[in-house]
Amino acid sequence: MIDPSLKSIDALFSPKSIAVIGASESFGKWGFDVIHHIVSGGGDFAVYPINPKREEVFGLPAYPSVLEVQGELDLAVIVVPPEQVQRAMDQCIRKGVRSVLVITAGFKEVGRDGAALEADLAKAARSAGLRFVGPNCNGHFNTAAGVFSLGSPRRIKPGGISLVSQSGNFGEHIVTKGWERGIGFAKCVSSGNEADLTVADFIEYLGEDPHTQVICAYIEGIKNGRRFVDLAREVSRRKPIVVMKGGNSPEGACAARSHTGALSGEAAINDGVFRQAGIIQVNKVQEMLDVASAFLRQPLPAGNRIGIITAGGGFGVIATDACRSTGLQVPALSSKTLSSLSRWMPSRWSKANPVDMAGDPFYSMPAIGGLLKSDDVDAVLAVSCLGFRTKDHDEFPATVRDELIAFQNQTTAMELEAMGGLIERVDRHGKPLIVAAVTPPGRSRAIARLVQEGIYPYESPEDGARVLSCLVQYSQYLARRPSQVG
Amino acid sequence: MIDPSLKSIDALFSPKSIAVIGASESFGKWGFDVIHHIVSGGGDFAVYPINPKREEVFGLPAYPSVLEVQGELDLAVIVVPPEQVQRAMDQCIRKGVRSVLVITAGFKEVGRDGAALEADLAKAARSAGLRFVGPNCNGHFNTAAGVFSLGSPRRIKPGGISLVSQSGNFGEHIVTKGWERGIGFAKCVSSGNEADLTVADFIEYLGEDPHTQVICAYIEGIKNGRRFVDLAREVSRRKPIVVMKGGNSPEGACAARSHTGALSGEAAINDGVFRQAGIIQVNKVQEMLDVASAFLRQPLPAGNRIGIITAGGGFGVIATDACRSTGLQVPALSSKTLSSLSRWMPSRWSKANPVDMAGDPFYSMPAIGGLLKSDDVDAVLAVSCLGFRTKDHDEFPATVRDELIAFQNQTTAMELEAMGGLIERVDRHGKPLIVAAVTPPGRSRAIARLVQEGIYPYESPEDGARVLSCLVQYSQYLARRPSQVG
Repeated sequence: MIDPSLKSIDALFSPKSIAVIGASESFGKWGFDVIHHIVSGGGDFAVYPINPKREEVFGLPAYPSVLEVQGELDLAVIVVPPEQVQRAMDQCIRKGVRSVLVITAGFKEVGRDGAALEADLAKAARSAGLRFVGPNCNGHFNTAAGVFSLGSPRRIKPGGISLVSQSGNFGEHIVTKGWERGIGFAKCVSSGNEADLTVADFIEYLGEDPHTQVICAYIEGIKNGRRFVDLAREVSRRKPIVVMKGGNSPEGACAARSHTGALSGEAAINDGVFRQAGIIQVNKVQEMLDVASAFLRQPLPAGNRIGIITAGGGFGVIATDACRSTGLQVPALSSKTLSSLSRWMPSRWSKANPVDMAGDPFYSMPAIGGLLKSDDVDAVLAVSCLGFRTKDHDEFPATVRDELIAFQNQTTAMELEAMGGLIERVDRHGKPLIVAAVTPPGRSRAIARLVQEGIYPYESPEDGARVLSCLVQYSQYLARRPSQVG
Repeated sequence: MIDPSLKSIDALFSPKSIAVIGASESFGKWGFDVIHHIVSGGGDFAVYPINPKREEVFGLPAYPSVLEVQGELDLAVIVVPPEQVQRAMDQCIRKGVRSVLVITAGFKEVGRDGAALEADLAKAARSAGLRFVGPNCNGHFNTAAGVFSLGSPRRIKPGGISLVSQSGNFGEHIVTKGWERGIGFAKCVSSGNEADLTVADFIEYLGEDPHTQVICAYIEGIKNGRRFVDLAREVSRRKPIVVMKGGNSPEGACAARSHTGALSGEAAINDGVFRQAGIIQVNKVQEMLDVASAFLRQPLPAGNRIGIITAGGGFGVIATDACRSTGLQVPALSSKTLSSLSRWMPSRWSKANPVDMAGDPFYSMPAIGGLLKSDDVDAVLAVSCLGFRTKDHDEFPATVRDELIAFQNQTTAMELEAMGGLIERVDRHGKPLIVAAVTPPGRSRAIARLVQEGIYPYESPEDGARVLSCLVQYSQYLARRPSQVG
């Protein structure tokens, strides 16, 4: 039997009918953005603006309350001022709305009076068996169903990442960064104060969701630590859970209290508990998409032995330091691998791991291919090689310009062609290829091809090593028998 | 009296005459790039291609050796194969060339035979009093004099950062990233194997150089630790020295040995020694430009008390954690500051540090201004606020499109206008303004204005906090009396 909260979450993400309580045509109001995003999402559902002062909103007939709406309502989004929320919720209960999302703020996060309002709201809904999101949240979306109460539908691309965030601001930021980087999302929800539905409920739901391949969460506090850990341990055997935890410092925890009213220490959730539950914890904002997008595309490495390849020695040293500082191994290469690589390499190459091509990046492709094939390593970190940089024509001397442009075009085309084979090797050998400190995609068609494939280059080898260490951590978690876990 | 090595370095960076030994018109050869870059640098110097097989190179008369060149030579750049380097160096000695730069590789970094070659080279030069750079380096440049043996002159912008790198590859990467980000450089040198001139010599020189405001260095090993530390301690009182150290792990140190032949442990240089000498150590590649560009533009904070401002609570929590984890304080605000800020803020703001505008970023400008003015904080970290995001026209509903475009244009113009006042406050109050997780400059004219001003936004609040901690570290170093240092 399906947990009733999961059924409510289904109604939330895939509604056939949506009421927007507080829908407005006044720009700058939440009620404007929500109805506009929902209408322009283009999903297959009926939309009912609720606004007693209007005949219609955005050309749709408006209703004084949900009670006047004919037929069933799967979802009501509440954006009226805080003092009107309880009444709207009561009407949703009487109407038998299947799920509610309360965007309105001004509850637990503002102090005692707000907390009392919130407790009343939760009590009423609970006794009626109505599950709701919020209050004090930013909305949600489901790209597969064209449902968007958060974010512009034209900007959000479908993809395998789902996000649940205890900060609406953080959630919007991650979704916006995804858009800028071409990374898509399945579902997203800002869980707000979690008066009813919690981050754990959403992780449980997303664990079952076929559109979600990777679950991301921003968490400030957890209400039921034991349940969260048990659930995470079970879900993370099926798909990775990438968590950014806010409130790790005493001052941060204090700020969290006035933000979502969360008590960070409450569940005694610490890094060790997260790790035991298979959760991949990230420590800075941009790591969340770095790591999640890697999980989407990269094979999981069988071990932690990294083959490093670089056009020049400095980056070999730096990448080695970066791998070691995140617990990755940089093993010696066997004579078999060394002699196999030597066939492709310039004579002055390092003949060791890191593989240093000594200033000659033209050999990157076969060398990376050779490392992916080698039994000595489980993953490849390619730094400052790969991606022939297209120069502007005026960078060449006039006398040889035409010749050099022809050479550049030929080299670019060759590298682009070889890239297909390299990507095929990543999949065939089941080894991640992490690329860092390379030419930006706008200057290299080969790197643009990688990005198109979902393999995103990182600014620094340190970022690349960090992502690799997350892939290794998750792979090691899966390798343990479930009975050994916990 | 000026140290003779400094005079040689002057000849290296500001030569009136340059010979390129091994100049070539064959694309793909070092001798091609070097002569091309030197010629197209447009500086006020004579160029002499040295190539016994050619009558001319790029339209300039070629000479069989430097000995045939009429007049004095300030600089000879050597790019011939390794076995010909000693002969070229001997000719430079006989000619009385003032400085030499040996790009050619195949010396100490390739093993015992190479080390012997290198020792002979150094011995000959030293006994003649000729100072040289390399071997196994990538070249150098000086934007003020139009001298470029490394990098494309059309791509490198003048600026206050100078870079000395024991990895040519790393140096090129930093310079290229500077170009991509619009950050300029004064001087740069790849110091290679340092058979003669070392990173310490260049730091000494750059310490006196009026064009250099910030010195960056990538270091794998240091020959004379005591001298380096004494020198760094003295130079860093005048300008910041930002160092990335390679070879911190045993495996990385081993890779460094085969790269530049450097022994990382040799001088027992560790983080504590660096810190005592006032050196700002960065731990990942992209931090080098993040930190150096902040030193170029930001005032030094008088203390470590950070005022955080954000549009939403999640980022307030995250930014607080980030500050605390780098040793920065996030102090309580005085009632004076609180009441002053309240005049500008939406009613539901956090009334505390972090200043959380509760979803209403329109108040960013006056709020940041208020924090800059407040006696409670020494610097401001603005996260996920500031920078009204320009939407594409198709993001608006058709019925209200024109109205919203007008609103957007007005808001953008107002924010842009207010930005000038904000920048003025940064300077007036002498407090850094660090901006993170904001709208990219391409979508916000206000952020574009900040970038133009040299205030670069960071992806993550963690990156911003890290940069702030470096500014604080340097400020604290300067605040100590010289006698207390060391």
